[in-house]
Amino acid sequence: MEREVKHMVLAKFKEGVSKEEIEECIKQFANLVDLVPSMKAFKWAKELSIVNFHQGFTHVFEAIFESAEDVGDYLANQNHIDYGNFLMPRLDKFIIIDFEPTNVQP
Amino acid sequence: MEREVKHMVLAKFKEGVSKEEIEECIKQFANLVDLVPSMKAFKWAKELSIVNFHQGFTHVFEAIFESAEDVGDYLANQNHIDYGNFLMPRLDKFIIIDFEPTNVQP
Repeated sequence: MEREVKHMVLAKFKEGVSKEEIEECIKQFANLVDLVPSMKAFKWAKELSIVNFHQGFTHVFEAIFESAEDVGDYLANQNHIDYGNFLMPRLDKFIIIDFEPTNVQP
Repeated sequence: MEREVKHMVLAKFKEGVSKEEIEECIKQFANLVDLVPSMKAFKWAKELSIVNFHQGFTHVFEAIFESAEDVGDYLANQNHIDYGNFLMPRLDKFIIIDFEPTNVQP
């Protein structure tokens, strides 16, 4: 893949959201790769708490695209909208940030 | 690289921090790859504002390691501490989150 534009979600799940529900959220997010043509890959992680500046965010989700336009197609895709309606009520807070990482060779 | 543990900083620079100062912050962060043995790579990006849930964060910095222990070595390294003392006074706010992305093939 030439370019890698990341649509990253930092998420904190609400108290009371079960482990199974969180797993379902991850699974359905990953499934969007099959449902949204412009979405090329999906990665996720639990926060590791090595430092304590993570402000309560527990999970990181990365939807990966080849351009900002492709992120736009994803945002407008009904499968994404349906997924958002599933995920968002389960979140206590979130940040979404889009960026295209530049690799620096010092 | 087998594993990729990311030490990610979401940053919002203070009003009045110049473009040149921001460039210096990026350059010095990148230079830590040469100064801190456990730090394997550095990536950075400006936030693209495709969606408006980025809460004012303008930059993403990713320091990349092979393990959580290597992040610990980085945190304790004097070059990192010196750099933190250079960067932090220029930030209005920041989040630091450590995570090891899992690639999901749906």
